Amino acid sequence: MEQLFQRLDASYNELVDIRRYLHQHPELSFKEVETPKYIAEYHQKLGHEVRTGVGGRGVVAKLYGAKPGPTIALRADFDALPIQEQNDVPYKSKNDGVMHACGHDGHTAELLVLAKVLNSLKSELMGTIVFIHQHAEELQPGGAVAMIEDGCLEEVDVIFGTHLWAPLPYGTIGYRSGPFMAAADRFSITVQGQGGHGAIPHFTKDSVVIASQLVLNLQQIVSRRVNPLDSAVLSIGNFVAQNAFNVIADTVQLDGTVRTFNDDVRASIENEMGRIIKGTCLAADVDVDFKFFRGYPAVVNHEEETRFLSDVAKAVTGVDAVLEVPPEMGGEDFAYYLQHVKGTFFFTGAGNGDVTTSYPHHHPKFNIEEKAMLLAAKTLGKAVLTYAERHAEVKA
Amino acid sequence: MEQLFQRLDASYNELVDIRRYLHQHPELSFKEVETPKYIAEYHQKLGHEVRTGVGGRGVVAKLYGAKPGPTIALRADFDALPIQEQNDVPYKSKNDGVMHACGHDGHTAELLVLAKVLNSLKSELMGTIVFIHQHAEELQPGGAVAMIEDGCLEEVDVIFGTHLWAPLPYGTIGYRSGPFMAAADRFSITVQGQGGHGAIPHFTKDSVVIASQLVLNLQQIVSRRVNPLDSAVLSIGNFVAQNAFNVIADTVQLDGTVRTFNDDVRASIENEMGRIIKGTCLAADVDVDFKFFRGYPAVVNHEEETRFLSDVAKAVTGVDAVLEVPPEMGGEDFAYYLQHVKGTFFFTGAGNGDVTTSYPHHHPKFNIEEKAMLLAAKTLGKAVLTYAERHAEVKA
Amino acid sequence: MEQLFQRLDASYNELVDIRRYLHQHPELSFKEVETPKYIAEYHQKLGHEVRTGVGGRGVVAKLYGAKPGPTIALRADFDALPIQEQNDVPYKSKNDGVMHACGHDGHTAELLVLAKVLNSLKSELMGTIVFIHQHAEELQPGGAVAMIEDGCLEEVDVIFGTHLWAPLPYGTIGYRSGPFMAAADRFSITVQGQGGHGAIPHFTKDSVVIASQLVLNLQQIVSRRVNPLDSAVLSIGNFVAQNAFNVIADTVQLDGTVRTFNDDVRASIENEMGRIIKGTCLAADVDVDFKFFRGYPAVVNHEEETRFLSDVAKAVTGVDAVLEVPPEMGGEDFAYYLQHVKGTFFFTGAGNGDVTTSYPHHHPKFNIEEKAMLLAAKTLGKAVLTYAERHAEVKA
Amino acid sequence: MEQLFQRLDASYNELVDIRRYLHQHPELSFKEVETPKYIAEYHQKLGHEVRTGVGGRGVVAKLYGAKPGPTIALRADFDALPIQEQNDVPYKSKNDGVMHACGHDGHTAELLVLAKVLNSLKSELMGTIVFIHQHAEELQPGGAVAMIEDGCLEEVDVIFGTHLWAPLPYGTIGYRSGPFMAAADRFSITVQGQGGHGAIPHFTKDSVVIASQLVLNLQQIVSRRVNPLDSAVLSIGNFVAQNAFNVIADTVQLDGTVRTFNDDVRASIENEMGRIIKGTCLAADVDVDFKFFRGYPAVVNHEEETRFLSDVAKAVTGVDAVLEVPPEMGGEDFAYYLQHVKGTFFFTGAGNGDVTTSYPHHHPKFNIEEKAMLLAAKTLGKAVLTYAERHAEVKA
Repeated sequence: MEQLFQRLDASYNELVDIRRYLHQHPELSFKEVETPKYIAEYHQKLGHEVRTGVGGRGVVAKLYGAKPGPTIALRADFDALPIQEQNDVPYKSKNDGVMHACGHDGHTAELLVLAKVLNSLKSELMGTIVFIHQHAEELQPGGAVAMIEDGCLEEVDVIFGTHLWAPLPYGTIGYRSGPFMAAADRFSITVQGQGGHGAIPHFTKDSVVIASQLVLNLQQIVSRRVNPLDSAVLSIGNFVAQNAFNVIADTVQLDGTVRTFNDDVRASIENEMGRIIKGTCLAADVDVDFKFFRGYPAVVNHEEETRFLSDVAKAVTGVDAVLEVPPEMGGEDFAYYLQHVKGTFFFTGAGNGDVTTSYPHHHPKFNIEEKAMLLAAKTLGKAVLTYAERHAEVKA
Repeated sequence: MEQLFQRLDASYNELVDIRRYLHQHPELSFKEVETPKYIAEYHQKLGHEVRTGVGGRGVVAKLYGAKPGPTIALRADFDALPIQEQNDVPYKSKNDGVMHACGHDGHTAELLVLAKVLNSLKSELMGTIVFIHQHAEELQPGGAVAMIEDGCLEEVDVIFGTHLWAPLPYGTIGYRSGPFMAAADRFSITVQGQGGHGAIPHFTKDSVVIASQLVLNLQQIVSRRVNPLDSAVLSIGNFVAQNAFNVIADTVQLDGTVRTFNDDVRASIENEMGRIIKGTCLAADVDVDFKFFRGYPAVVNHEEETRFLSDVAKAVTGVDAVLEVPPEMGGEDFAYYLQHVKGTFFFTGAGNGDVTTSYPHHHPKFNIEEKAMLLAAKTLGKAVLTYAERHAEVKA
Repeated sequence: MEQLFQRLDASYNELVDIRRYLHQHPELSFKEVETPKYIAEYHQKLGHEVRTGVGGRGVVAKLYGAKPGPTIALRADFDALPIQEQNDVPYKSKNDGVMHACGHDGHTAELLVLAKVLNSLKSELMGTIVFIHQHAEELQPGGAVAMIEDGCLEEVDVIFGTHLWAPLPYGTIGYRSGPFMAAADRFSITVQGQGGHGAIPHFTKDSVVIASQLVLNLQQIVSRRVNPLDSAVLSIGNFVAQNAFNVIADTVQLDGTVRTFNDDVRASIENEMGRIIKGTCLAADVDVDFKFFRGYPAVVNHEEETRFLSDVAKAVTGVDAVLEVPPEMGGEDFAYYLQHVKGTFFFTGAGNGDVTTSYPHHHPKFNIEEKAMLLAAKTLGKAVLTYAERHAEVKA
Repeated sequence: MEQLFQRLDASYNELVDIRRYLHQHPELSFKEVETPKYIAEYHQKLGHEVRTGVGGRGVVAKLYGAKPGPTIALRADFDALPIQEQNDVPYKSKNDGVMHACGHDGHTAELLVLAKVLNSLKSELMGTIVFIHQHAEELQPGGAVAMIEDGCLEEVDVIFGTHLWAPLPYGTIGYRSGPFMAAADRFSITVQGQGGHGAIPHFTKDSVVIASQLVLNLQQIVSRRVNPLDSAVLSIGNFVAQNAFNVIADTVQLDGTVRTFNDDVRASIENEMGRIIKGTCLAADVDVDFKFFRGYPAVVNHEEETRFLSDVAKAVTGVDAVLEVPPEMGGEDFAYYLQHVKGTFFFTGAGNGDVTTSYPHHHPKFNIEEKAMLLAAKTLGKAVLTYAERHAEVKA
């Protein structure tokens, strides 16, 4: 383990260089071309078995240890966002309107450098390491589903992944067993009433009144229909009936989001919404179009692997720096991997107290403390070696 | 006409005596026994053709004029209310818990005395006068329907009726063409949710929340579904979910009333209610029982007869004392007569500025200015004679 | 009267010519230049006393009869609308985007030709005729207020006005005593909540939910706070919160209209709205901006003058063609004249059963049956002569 | 430890006898007389230092070990409920309308027998055991507060308590660190509108409509104002406006409950309720009376002591029988002890699969598997001895 940490420390400059290079050359989800090529070449130079175009644009590299042992997957996503960077840094994005504003550049860099260091330890390595470089995390339906269908998890025993997380301070690791990141769904409701002059309501079906009822009726799902011990959110952000003041609205468009951590709750909310919308519109004698678009499911960490990871993290960064964090309402398609194999997803603190790391993820001025990448690589690396050691005999 | 007025004036004491006698012996709707007997005997003594038990307990008497002419009906109701009188008067009700608290004693007295006086003018009288003494005006379904079915309007050309009306001052007559008194319907809604402990809403269907939605949704009928130029009221007076504070209600009982002046509006409201209740309860996934009980329809006065009556009234009490009054939201089963023959229903002011006549109809201290009976009799009497004269040739 | 009708009949072609000339040269409210000049010249040629620029752009002409009598005002409005005409007629509007789509061209033509004919009867004429040609009826605050302030009603005893009304068939006159056209007010409500991410409602104040409550709470004014015998409408046509689906709205804009026929109801609704909005936003802990813009008040016709006018109309067009019509929910600044002097405003039917006159007022294809102008002129003319005759001695 | 278990096993018959005796002689909260006397005498016979009347009717007994060590409190409540027992058992309640329907008879029996056994181990015992026999757990404000004020926790280092829990099977122990049982508050809202006849809403202030708005507005606290990761319930069980169908309600009474696990959420809900009620009633121009009665706070178990207890339990009953259970929405005044000293409260499974133990707590047929008392006594006993041993040197 000492060698792992020393060699990672020694590669810190390379880690930063790779991250900054990727930061300058961001690519949008499902449109990644240069990034997977860069990744594949890096692994190829190390002599890893490399498969490209996995599930579309993903890259999967395999490092075979000299000794028998389990197959451990590590995942990093590599797509960027349609955001115009506002940071004034030497490594600013060179692609107009595209930016690594979520830290995926760092995820990729840390996984590549870790791959190099693990490769250097190959002779002692037990088992196989599968490096899953995933495209398109930011955009539905995400790259994970297709990569899994394309076999990236074949023979994999366990998977680990981390997100550089600016709201947590550098030096800390945030973990949570069970529901960790929410299922984030979207819905659209179009109320089709009957417009007319504001002075003669009885010849119309007032869509604004009906949509207002819908907004309020849907609020009752969370307060009345969901177990108070479960978490759920239903918000309507968009309510548009653009008309003259003296007109009664013909149609109203509503759009909103549902967040849950539990499949039953999620299904039940979709079901309740359908019934409430149907009933409310029947009451009002209007037509309605309701569409529910499922986003990523909840990231549900496995208990044993999470405990394992948090123990590993404590050994890396100290007991007090490893925090059980509350669930996050945002979504992640890492969720899909955990539906197939055991594993855990965790946060690596990437804030440093400076204003530069104080912007939320997806902000045009988002940035990270780069040393966090090193901590992430160490944690993942130690997890791999420890896990391999403990499970070597099982596989042998 | 001079004779009519003189003889009515001369009979004022008798008028008061009859009214006070009836006031002392009130009888409940559909339970009238002595009152119809008293009425029948009075007419029999005058030699009128009398039919009793009409439509149940009604009395119909006919006075045939010596000359040909139209058949004119006058109607007075004679039932009392289940109210304990609180007036301290010599002629206080002798029947415990029963009271003439709406003035029907006066209606009957004025019609009897008018019958006597008209009888005395028989030799000059053109046509036939039908005295309709109706039972059970205060209680659904009312006596009018059954009396009409039993033939009380046969050969009748026109009908007049009046209500002694304490809110209007003595000396005035209130008339209105078209909708005059509202259709007064009743409804009952039972929401059958699913009760449970207040701490676990997701295992229940919260009837209080659902019934609250119903209350608010039903308000929108008046504001959105009824022509603003029409009048309509929908009120829910009873909302009962009696439970411990920490229980979620299994069931809620709602009761209310609908008032309208127009058959289409009435039908449309019943229809809208059905749909709103069905839709709201579908949205909430609960069972519901909705019953709509039609009360009396609206009293809709005929235009020509109303103008005729108001002209007659002006000749009796002076132009300034005859007022076009706004419609009343209360109901009257005189409505049914006007669905079969032409005619009008009007108010005879019966307040005198004293506190004794300041109580609303149906109040345990309700009373009238008795002179109003004389004015009512004169107005009805003059209406009969004038109408007969004008329409004599038509019939001849 | 015979001469009046003969000479009007004889001027029918001129009537049409004037109307069509004006139709080709429409001018927007408060921007009228050529139209008032044209009107003024017409009256000047007749030798009338003419005042221009009254209250801005209005024209007032006076015709003094040879005999003493009352001062009678007739009003016609002359502004057009910002609408691109879609009629394919030889006299189509020559001003791009401006159109006489409400019939004011006809109002002006009929008043001018009537002025000419009345002028020709001057030697027999009792009293004074004031021709009020009003600018800017279509646009708040309207021309009437300023013209009245500028003296157009000085010494006027009575005023008459009519609107060519396509929904009524040609040949008919529609009248109504009391409330005839509604007060049409506008309001704007801006809810200032606190936006945020859709997944964390507790850090926001959800403007969409709050505005939905406002929509529903305001509906209760009509159903609960207004006398069911009064008419009132409150409609919200515009509800805009344009946001991404996963955002909670920071702000919502609501715009709507209130229609009433009665000053007390109008004031009470404005007052209730203020309290409901204040209370609802206090409950939700958000800021709100509420503005109520009073439009024209209700046109309330005087009873005696309306009866007079309907009698006159019956003599012109026959009893059966003169209809008591229900109130209209639209507004008219004729309302202001009736707050100062007695008078009445009525509709002259201008539909002819053809599709050409089937478009609603303000439609790009709006048109009228031109013969209606002749009927309007005759009715106004006969009203003037009859009224003058009847009231001559009073003034003398 | 062996001796502890053997002696407890040997005392099982006594344990059952005591429980059944108490079951036959239940006493209502704050009215306990014989039960505390019985308890005191039992301890006195063992030679324990006994204080009665603690905080009213509580009993505190102390057992001083021969060796130095920590002071450990064990708590059992001893009041019964105003319920008429429906069980047909030989030891059925002899007090009409009063019943041990929650298991407090068992709590007391197990603590007494445990006291006897621990007493027999006194020579080896390190530290002091404080037996807190609490009155009035079932009725606000509960006995715990007063007993604490009266010193029952003086010098206490740690406290343990358990509830016999029929929904869990016998043989299991349920634990949870952090929020374990909810704060259970009550509220009352009286809406004072203005009653009147159902036909004239504009002369009234319709309390039913306003209270319905309150019901719905208050639902939004949970859905919009509480962090979705926190648990909270707000339910209104009682909504009473008892009136004739044709009346508009003068007043409405609402009663409900709020459940939370977190002091900030609890305070925030009370605060939000106040503002929503105030604003809604301002909007409706009515008076309102709102009272919020705080019940017991949430039982929040201390992390370290809970882990300790669950480890102890695993040693007693086996690893698989010790379950992390979800929080309960019901309340317990054990909460107050945990605000003063460290400790934990846990469930001892008391269901046996028979119908006899299938009734919910507070049911007239409630009963327990009596062997659960033995398991509870063993777990508490082993906790005491283990804790004492581990912390002996600290205190020494």
